[in-house]
Amino acid sequence: MDLQGILEDIVTHVAPLCRQGEVASYIPSLGVVSPDNFGICVATADGAIYGAGDWRKPFSIQSISKVFSLALVMSYDYDSIWKRVFREPSGTPFNSMIQLEADRGIPRNPFINAGALVVTDRLLTLTGDAAGAVRGLLRQEAGNPSIDVDAEVAASEADHGHRNAAMAHLLASYGNLENPVEDVLANYFAQCALELCCEDLAKAALFLARDGVSAGGSPFLQPSQSKRVNAVMLTCGTYDAAGEFAYRVGLPGKSGVGGGIVAVVPGRCVVTVWGPSLGPNGNSVAGMAALDEFTAKTGWSIF
Amino acid sequence: MDLQGILEDIVTHVAPLCRQGEVASYIPSLGVVSPDNFGICVATADGAIYGAGDWRKPFSIQSISKVFSLALVMSYDYDSIWKRVFREPSGTPFNSMIQLEADRGIPRNPFINAGALVVTDRLLTLTGDAAGAVRGLLRQEAGNPSIDVDAEVAASEADHGHRNAAMAHLLASYGNLENPVEDVLANYFAQCALELCCEDLAKAALFLARDGVSAGGSPFLQPSQSKRVNAVMLTCGTYDAAGEFAYRVGLPGKSGVGGGIVAVVPGRCVVTVWGPSLGPNGNSVAGMAALDEFTAKTGWSIF
Amino acid sequence: MDLQGILEDIVTHVAPLCRQGEVASYIPSLGVVSPDNFGICVATADGAIYGAGDWRKPFSIQSISKVFSLALVMSYDYDSIWKRVFREPSGTPFNSMIQLEADRGIPRNPFINAGALVVTDRLLTLTGDAAGAVRGLLRQEAGNPSIDVDAEVAASEADHGHRNAAMAHLLASYGNLENPVEDVLANYFAQCALELCCEDLAKAALFLARDGVSAGGSPFLQPSQSKRVNAVMLTCGTYDAAGEFAYRVGLPGKSGVGGGIVAVVPGRCVVTVWGPSLGPNGNSVAGMAALDEFTAKTGWSIF
Amino acid sequence: MDLQGILEDIVTHVAPLCRQGEVASYIPSLGVVSPDNFGICVATADGAIYGAGDWRKPFSIQSISKVFSLALVMSYDYDSIWKRVFREPSGTPFNSMIQLEADRGIPRNPFINAGALVVTDRLLTLTGDAAGAVRGLLRQEAGNPSIDVDAEVAASEADHGHRNAAMAHLLASYGNLENPVEDVLANYFAQCALELCCEDLAKAALFLARDGVSAGGSPFLQPSQSKRVNAVMLTCGTYDAAGEFAYRVGLPGKSGVGGGIVAVVPGRCVVTVWGPSLGPNGNSVAGMAALDEFTAKTGWSIF
Repeated sequence: MDLQGILEDIVTHVAPLCRQGEVASYIPSLGVVSPDNFGICVATADGAIYGAGDWRKPFSIQSISKVFSLALVMSYDYDSIWKRVFREPSGTPFNSMIQLEADRGIPRNPFINAGALVVTDRLLTLTGDAAGAVRGLLRQEAGNPSIDVDAEVAASEADHGHRNAAMAHLLASYGNLENPVEDVLANYFAQCALELCCEDLAKAALFLARDGVSAGGSPFLQPSQSKRVNAVMLTCGTYDAAGEFAYRVGLPGKSGVGGGIVAVVPGRCVVTVWGPSLGPNGNSVAGMAALDEFTAKTGWSIF
Repeated sequence: MDLQGILEDIVTHVAPLCRQGEVASYIPSLGVVSPDNFGICVATADGAIYGAGDWRKPFSIQSISKVFSLALVMSYDYDSIWKRVFREPSGTPFNSMIQLEADRGIPRNPFINAGALVVTDRLLTLTGDAAGAVRGLLRQEAGNPSIDVDAEVAASEADHGHRNAAMAHLLASYGNLENPVEDVLANYFAQCALELCCEDLAKAALFLARDGVSAGGSPFLQPSQSKRVNAVMLTCGTYDAAGEFAYRVGLPGKSGVGGGIVAVVPGRCVVTVWGPSLGPNGNSVAGMAALDEFTAKTGWSIF
Repeated sequence: MDLQGILEDIVTHVAPLCRQGEVASYIPSLGVVSPDNFGICVATADGAIYGAGDWRKPFSIQSISKVFSLALVMSYDYDSIWKRVFREPSGTPFNSMIQLEADRGIPRNPFINAGALVVTDRLLTLTGDAAGAVRGLLRQEAGNPSIDVDAEVAASEADHGHRNAAMAHLLASYGNLENPVEDVLANYFAQCALELCCEDLAKAALFLARDGVSAGGSPFLQPSQSKRVNAVMLTCGTYDAAGEFAYRVGLPGKSGVGGGIVAVVPGRCVVTVWGPSLGPNGNSVAGMAALDEFTAKTGWSIF
Repeated sequence: MDLQGILEDIVTHVAPLCRQGEVASYIPSLGVVSPDNFGICVATADGAIYGAGDWRKPFSIQSISKVFSLALVMSYDYDSIWKRVFREPSGTPFNSMIQLEADRGIPRNPFINAGALVVTDRLLTLTGDAAGAVRGLLRQEAGNPSIDVDAEVAASEADHGHRNAAMAHLLASYGNLENPVEDVLANYFAQCALELCCEDLAKAALFLARDGVSAGGSPFLQPSQSKRVNAVMLTCGTYDAAGEFAYRVGLPGKSGVGGGIVAVVPGRCVVTVWGPSLGPNGNSVAGMAALDEFTAKTGWSIF
């Protein structure tokens, strides 16, 4: 199969979709990114890299960082995190606060914001620097020591972060934070403001296609843990469109409001896409179409 | 791999779990089934059958019938059903009615009761006899013409079916039923009261492991449709435990309150288990443990 | 005070409002009523009657009938009904079904539909003919033996009553109906389809301004019961606008989708208004304005 | 009527109830108050004062302060506050956050915490010192310049105030706060920590029984405003027991978790009670029983 050809075709085909939807603008730094950017990259389990379009331009990974903070916490602490967060799909966003109240402060899964705050809190306890730990993992796996937090984006998140602050205080009111609200928020905003390009991101997530084996060849996660991170991505990784994503794309995936999506073909490869303009569910319109075409053409689906 | 040996080991290991949880008793006919029953069967894509325990004893398939009614509707009518039902995980059961109101009568997915009523309604329109169509499909795929509805169970469901009647009237109030409420309910109760053993059920669902190819070798579903039924099973198939099931078992699956579960290993096989006693989420306790052990021992997971 | 003059002024002032809002049209028989109708009547505790506009034209009392069915049940059975229905305001209509589920089948108050179905069910058990009992009370108190059910409206309600049927089945699923769903619904639709004019209705409700004393001078309710029906009307009588009604009008009141409203000035009088066009909360626009002006001009408020 | 005798009887009768329920203990300073305290006071519109039990012992007024902050805001600014907060009963506490989300940041009424934060925010804008303005009003109306904030209680509220902080950040995320979250919370915690005895509180609230006329004889509120504060108290003043309170007591009232309740008999008097032990709805058990007996014996009810 000519993967490089497939990626180049996809870039051509999705170009007209780049202006559908809207670029996230709740913080100014995100809103200025041009919707015409589009990149795609495939990193295979045996080390090959393919890319097309803007695949080497860095973007704000936002919620995609939640995959790495979860993996880090699991790497330290096999599965004790599941006492503090469930791993069930969340239903509509509308339900997030009511669910948190009904479940006495236990978030529905680690990929909604409430759950990610709990994971970051745990990572902060384990490492003393949660955002730093995520950055360190990304640098090491991508082999790129220049990966860093965009401080302006992080500050901007903090300035506009009343909703995350509300969630963190609600978690604290149920005793489900180990660190001060302010520290958890600062680490959370920083990890979300990490900047990577499609290539870095595909390399960094490759352990999920290799049963947990890191870039250096040593086990970062156990095989069962790696499968489980993929399972949580499939059921909970794309906000309220997890069912749609499984139906159309058929792969575990995690999206971010920066327009990036990472998808895993277990045993084979990681695919990353980036297109800043988002559909109603907060997922990249061009990115979703690209993954749809990619799985249709390669026949790679877990189903 | 000695599949037969694995199944026999599993029967031994899960025996002590058969009395954990509770047998569904909301209708008398289900409540009298002994919790000590346990069966497991594997039907492979190339035609082999393995079984252990009570794998040839029929049981009430209940919600597992929803997989077949959905497949039938898709076989007639590629994907027009998705205008009338979403395919997203539902969150807590608590949310089902509020969701239906918030979404103006469009159920969250075809495997919660509201969604299954819509699918049965559509199948009734397409065939004139929805329960008969499901029965016909099961007989044909399992090669067992004696498969039938347990009329006593169906009548009992109707007598105790106020909650389903409420749901059907609510759907009707939003114009999302094409047939009279009474007819839809009668067909729904009948399809849920179909009786099959683990062997029949594994054979009947095998098309989902064979990209839609039926027992007779002809395409029943298109490959993309088969993958999509699996995707919906993975994200929505086990009530409010879809995330847990994906995490622990790692396969698309569908459970019923009769204690049966069907799980699909795409390209390889279908596994069916039956243990009447249910955990808090309505899934067979012994059955979940059996599937957990099965995937751990075979290493068969989609992740 | 010249009550007659006040009423005539009100009729003049509210005329321009009669075309604001919309006449209820979920059943055809209601939809054909002209929005230009407007009537107002005051029946005083000492027997005087004042009226203006279309105060002698009958209309469908709809939910106003719930006041009389509640009073009847209380007259038989001091307060045992409160084991089966709460008496708290309901919050948004959106919450009605979720509340019923959260509270295991106990409706929030007797004036939302779910609660009114429970009251009608109880009255049916107590009398064998709930709608007949309500009709009998209205005829006797109004002194008008021609008061009757509009059979076409009742039949029309039944034809369009999927939502009430859903609610009744949900109540039945929790064991909170004593009679068959069909019988409760038939009685409920009949009592809602009773037709009275403003004069009849003011006379019929006058016992609520006279500490429970009936038109004939005998006690129909105990004084504490009469006060309590008024209290429930104040907190729960006008759908999701109870706070607004208390704030603007300052009297216990109950509205119906036929455009009628009955309001009680304890110790003094009953005021009834009728204007078919409804605002967003389901209350008569002209009627609300009329009551607002009435209380402003008379200074009669319970606060 | 011998009011003094009635109050003394009530003190005797409710004594056995003082140990029912539980003293609020979410902050240490409240938890140490003895449940055996009980006081009652009546201040009449013509200036007489009656009291019994611990009616001169100060207690933390907590949510009762919300009546005064609302009255102050209305005194400055006739009714512009109603653009930022509704005045409808709230339904179950469970609904408070979901309601705030559904209504895009507009709280359901000024007496739930979210609404009271908005009122305090507005008062802070109007006066520069919201807690000081409430304290000033209470001192002036009660004629007691020693009324003050219990600084330890206020600090304790802040330490345990994650839930109120969550609510304030959520309001801010919808743009419904004019001042910084920290400032609004500090003023809110301070006003709740004001300490008054039953006598002070009855005098301070007397303007609500006198159509808005202050202790000094000048109009503090317009008569229509005073009636409206009473209306909001009746429909929303006692958490999720507003219907129960209207049914049993039949008066506008406002309770606090310190165990105090203030009730208004328009035109006649204000009654205040204090008993620290709370029932499941957060209202004083002994206080509710006392008001029940008071209205039964005096026959004073608005219905």
